[in-house]
Amino acid sequence: MFAASQKTLEVPIVTSETTSTATETVFTVEATPVKFGAGAAADAGWELRRLGVTRAFVVVDPEVRARGVAAPILECMRAAGVELIEYHDVDTEPSIHAFERAVQAARDAGVDGFVAIGGGSAIDTAKVANLVSTHGGEIMDYVNPPVGKGVKPPGALRPLLAIPTTPGSGSEATTVAILDIPELKIKTGISHRYMRPSQAIVDPELTRTAPGAVIAAAGLDVVCHAAESFLSRPYTSRPRPASPDERPPYQGSNPVADLWSGQALRYGGQYLRRAVASEDDVEARGFMMLSATMAGVGFGSAGVHIPHSCAYPIAGLKHSYRHPGYPGEKMFVPHGFSVIVTAPASFRFTFDAAPERHLMAASFLTGETYVPDDREALPNALLSLMKDVGAPSGVAELGYDESDIPALIEGALKQQRLLAVAPKTPTEADLDRILRDSMYNW
Amino acid sequence: MFAASQKTLEVPIVTSETTSTATETVFTVEATPVKFGAGAAADAGWELRRLGVTRAFVVVDPEVRARGVAAPILECMRAAGVELIEYHDVDTEPSIHAFERAVQAARDAGVDGFVAIGGGSAIDTAKVANLVSTHGGEIMDYVNPPVGKGVKPPGALRPLLAIPTTPGSGSEATTVAILDIPELKIKTGISHRYMRPSQAIVDPELTRTAPGAVIAAAGLDVVCHAAESFLSRPYTSRPRPASPDERPPYQGSNPVADLWSGQALRYGGQYLRRAVASEDDVEARGFMMLSATMAGVGFGSAGVHIPHSCAYPIAGLKHSYRHPGYPGEKMFVPHGFSVIVTAPASFRFTFDAAPERHLMAASFLTGETYVPDDREALPNALLSLMKDVGAPSGVAELGYDESDIPALIEGALKQQRLLAVAPKTPTEADLDRILRDSMYNW
Repeated sequence: MFAASQKTLEVPIVTSETTSTATETVFTVEATPVKFGAGAAADAGWELRRLGVTRAFVVVDPEVRARGVAAPILECMRAAGVELIEYHDVDTEPSIHAFERAVQAARDAGVDGFVAIGGGSAIDTAKVANLVSTHGGEIMDYVNPPVGKGVKPPGALRPLLAIPTTPGSGSEATTVAILDIPELKIKTGISHRYMRPSQAIVDPELTRTAPGAVIAAAGLDVVCHAAESFLSRPYTSRPRPASPDERPPYQGSNPVADLWSGQALRYGGQYLRRAVASEDDVEARGFMMLSATMAGVGFGSAGVHIPHSCAYPIAGLKHSYRHPGYPGEKMFVPHGFSVIVTAPASFRFTFDAAPERHLMAASFLTGETYVPDDREALPNALLSLMKDVGAPSGVAELGYDESDIPALIEGALKQQRLLAVAPKTPTEADLDRILRDSMYNW
Repeated sequence: MFAASQKTLEVPIVTSETTSTATETVFTVEATPVKFGAGAAADAGWELRRLGVTRAFVVVDPEVRARGVAAPILECMRAAGVELIEYHDVDTEPSIHAFERAVQAARDAGVDGFVAIGGGSAIDTAKVANLVSTHGGEIMDYVNPPVGKGVKPPGALRPLLAIPTTPGSGSEATTVAILDIPELKIKTGISHRYMRPSQAIVDPELTRTAPGAVIAAAGLDVVCHAAESFLSRPYTSRPRPASPDERPPYQGSNPVADLWSGQALRYGGQYLRRAVASEDDVEARGFMMLSATMAGVGFGSAGVHIPHSCAYPIAGLKHSYRHPGYPGEKMFVPHGFSVIVTAPASFRFTFDAAPERHLMAASFLTGETYVPDDREALPNALLSLMKDVGAPSGVAELGYDESDIPALIEGALKQQRLLAVAPKTPTEADLDRILRDSMYNW
């Protein structure tokens, strides 16, 4: 629960008296309709019928399927009379090639709707399969420029019902799909409001069998989504676009995104440790599921920046890490770990841009209050959480040494779409410092 | 801004271990996509084009039109190439007959989209004109039972762009349209998710010419939406429905609605007095606009109850009141005043059901903290706000005396859809007490 006392740290509402004509005065917020609660997944068939779906392409994460989580949901969708084309070829941290296979399978299946059951990888796979099978073309046509052509989908997609099984990506609430392009050694995305799922069902019971390490990585991603959004530069600091078309998807912090991000941080601080510690703490995992969706709405409006920019090359350049608590043998850096490792140093760097907001983010996480110049408050709150949930200690543990820093910087600088909402724009030297500081966080 | 410290007053997440199979475990939240900010109304044409609208039925509140607020918006829609059929026959507190005229006009106009520019009356008029002209039948077919047949619309409506001009109803964010049926001396509504506007544009600049009394009534309605939602019985206290179809639109308090309602209360406490005091305090009026939309999302999920139930007969039985600050000569009780007059006594009555939540609602409004048994905290916070913004002192000032109480009780008891989410269900005797206490609040 949020507390009652008042603070005046609000992103302002600017008016014609208080702003120059050159800066932005408008922000937008959209949220996927969410059905939340224990047992909510049993409504999946009903929701598909409501959405007019009779034949669905169902992307199921194979690990989630192996844990037995998907079967009852599939059964209830069939019982509602929906024909299902199951698809299990979901990569963790999916590449463009994995998405291409899914697009082809969706085209072959000839469906009138989509379902995703799994984490961000499964939901993003369904988003892209829906986009390209509905509107044609190639995936690269739609990928964010400069990597892809940034073509906007000409109209709405087919209905997509997203059923997350881990409290992480918030993809059920966002307009984004993230993909790895191995040939370019880059991770990038496709982003458009039509990519937002038509409905999300967020059912805490589905997390019951997820390993603690999966919850830890997912939950640290949530905390970063929320903290980065909350600390993103105010929407009023951007230039006003010439046309609404040019308003970026990541708009910077604003009063509505702040509300979601702040609450997501509180839940992260209160519940992530418990959620990781016990598979059966459905209450804690439930609040983390809610936190993930809330943070998704928050960063879907405000945006993420430095830790996420660094995370893409950290996950993309080398594939030599395997977390012992993760299922499967694949060598990869779980997304949440690739993000959190640079977060303490990133927020040490950004502190000066908005000291009060950094202290408030720390307070959300810990419930403590801090003295005004405590630039270590937020880094320390994050380090404590990282240690408690078994996160890797830094970039070094993920397989990198100082000789890799130039390549990591180069990769991070490619994420200009994200860095544009950083509260302080990092130079190469700043990123060098952040990555060096993040080699060993303890 | 919300504060950082933590409270454990959260509506619980129930799991299979913590709940009986007979009680609800699921809640839903949906929000209209919102574009917010000074000057945002200039995007109206662009939004209509995005929604695929080429010929729009535009409901414009005549008072708003007279103040010159609508003309630039109409101009920008025309400049975007959208053909406009203007409609100005909007009643304050509209009757079914006013809606019937709008339905007929919309049918005659043959449009592919709707726009509303005005307060709740204009937006509700557009909702109903859209519903009935799209799907046929009569208005009473769709009115909530037992008054009407409660027919559900068979599919989506045409796009509706809602542009509120007062911080009040939150209708831009809700699925509800409220109507007066003079023959039955009852106010009731039509409610379905398809009634939710496709897009809202919330532009603080549009409030610039609204009289203080209009802002006062609208803002007190917002405060009641938020307080009633925040105090509604938890969603987990309802019986679990046999089918998702039977889940009521008003579900009771839940963690997401609480977030919206809590923030709306904070803004109400911080900004309503300023918003009423000066036509040109666009910052304060802007936060009230945001508050209205947030409260709309909150009560659209959680629900309103006793003060709103009493407000319907208070507004419907007699039309002998005219607030001196309101434009026009029509005798009517502005909706916000009809609601707020019974709020102090209602929350005195409900205090025992959830003392901590009542104190927290008071704290949201005032920024103060209270001792645990202070049952006057919330009534006093409301009374102070009412006095400061020039609200009527009670039900008596609106034209009623004690001999009217039985009829008022009878009217309130007809609102079972609302009373179902009250934290404590009022008996006839309880309503008698509430109405008697509300005759003269000071």
